[in-house]
Amino acid sequence: MASDTTEDVDTDSEFERATSVIAVGDGRYEGRVAAGWDIAGNANGGYLMAVAARAMASEVGRPPLSLTAHFVSPGPVGPATITTDVVRDGRRMAVVRGTLSVDDRTVITLLGTFAHPVDPDDSAPTHESSEPPALPPYEDSIPGSPPGDSGFGERVRARYHPDDIGFALGRPTGDATMRGWFRFADDGPIDPYGLLLATDAFAPVCFNVPGVPVAWAPTLELTVHVRAVPAPGPVRARFRSRHLRDGFFEEDGEVWDATGRLVAQSRQLALVPKG
Amino acid sequence: MASDTTEDVDTDSEFERATSVIAVGDGRYEGRVAAGWDIAGNANGGYLMAVAARAMASEVGRPPLSLTAHFVSPGPVGPATITTDVVRDGRRMAVVRGTLSVDDRTVITLLGTFAHPVDPDDSAPTHESSEPPALPPYEDSIPGSPPGDSGFGERVRARYHPDDIGFALGRPTGDATMRGWFRFADDGPIDPYGLLLATDAFAPVCFNVPGVPVAWAPTLELTVHVRAVPAPGPVRARFRSRHLRDGFFEEDGEVWDATGRLVAQSRQLALVPKG
Repeated sequence: MASDTTEDVDTDSEFERATSVIAVGDGRYEGRVAAGWDIAGNANGGYLMAVAARAMASEVGRPPLSLTAHFVSPGPVGPATITTDVVRDGRRMAVVRGTLSVDDRTVITLLGTFAHPVDPDDSAPTHESSEPPALPPYEDSIPGSPPGDSGFGERVRARYHPDDIGFALGRPTGDATMRGWFRFADDGPIDPYGLLLATDAFAPVCFNVPGVPVAWAPTLELTVHVRAVPAPGPVRARFRSRHLRDGFFEEDGEVWDATGRLVAQSRQLALVPKG
Repeated sequence: MASDTTEDVDTDSEFERATSVIAVGDGRYEGRVAAGWDIAGNANGGYLMAVAARAMASEVGRPPLSLTAHFVSPGPVGPATITTDVVRDGRRMAVVRGTLSVDDRTVITLLGTFAHPVDPDDSAPTHESSEPPALPPYEDSIPGSPPGDSGFGERVRARYHPDDIGFALGRPTGDATMRGWFRFADDGPIDPYGLLLATDAFAPVCFNVPGVPVAWAPTLELTVHVRAVPAPGPVRARFRSRHLRDGFFEEDGEVWDATGRLVAQSRQLALVPKG
């Protein structure tokens, strides 16, 4: 049951083109790990999730609601195959497994629940205890590029809160937090797939912990909950870790849209870089 | 590559016996959804994860490090089959998919990374910003049973902070938090599988939000990170939600052992009960 919407590459959004997939039958999709979405030669994890999620979503005609990826091997640029397997296709929710491979080598494997977004329901019980971060205007925030950036920073605009960029100046702040703005350089829309990318587009929060080298922090697992479709415009995000120890840290992300609505939550488990 | 350790049912721990599995070849395991681990007839989600996790772990000879389950249908009591599929079997980490079925009906489907626990490393960078909850002694905390309890409360001891039990008295506290002690009634050890259960053994935090009925809050997805093997004794846990809206809420859990060491983090996405 392939939806043609996710295969439409006639779009001005470079992200949409770079994550598009084509159904080839039996739950298999062809896509690619496009050049320019990598950090030092390895494709960004959120980008890889977005490619696989489009195939999984197409198979059930619904976007991701909760999606988990485990990172198996680095993602080189090249043609990619995504296999999907529908575990449940219910009225409201579908559960789908997926695997993205390049050159017959598994890069990421995923499991998710897919569902159409719900409309805001202000009459339903509501309880929110976390607010969007107070950020300087986008123009006054600090552009940041990941170390060894080789294209990602040309396509994605992550702008940091000035209080969180100590890591980039050799002076980690001592607070395992990153806050900032996220948008695409071409101002392409931030849909649920763009949110997957947004949750993995900032420097890892461990960089602001003294003694942690600014080096690759391998993500083992990343789970994203898409809570709403963002309104147009840049999104604001806050990432933090509460427990960095014994070589591991979790990183929790929250993403809000221009109206102040929470649109995504994320958590990843990653390895503290050893330098 | 089945390890016999998880198949050893010669134990005093009822939880170990009730979650034991036997390899039958080709990555398939037989186990059961045992009576008495249910809430109103549906097996507890953490219990189901533990049964499946034992099979997945046995296949790679390592316990779960990060495990995600999506809940597909309620788990009735009966013989269960667990299928496992090793995506990667690396030197340190293994990635495994699993599915637990009863009567050929899929109950939960899972994806996880499995690895031996690391030793504490106090020489490595450490940054913790979340402390265990201050709780009255176990004896002075409030025993709680889930609504419609039919056996779970005889096997699992969840004792609540007195400030968090408003929901049980018809006076929700207005703070989407539950804090308390967890142990097995038979004082069985809380190993990584017991931690999976601990993260799903308390009343859902939404019960303390005014307007939310005390009724089944279906979990869509639960992810648990096992951060360390607990020292002997009861564990302390805190659960909270920061974003309950539009019919969904996330619930984040942190579990500490008797020495004050963080041993697990969890997050689930669930539906707000409609009554």
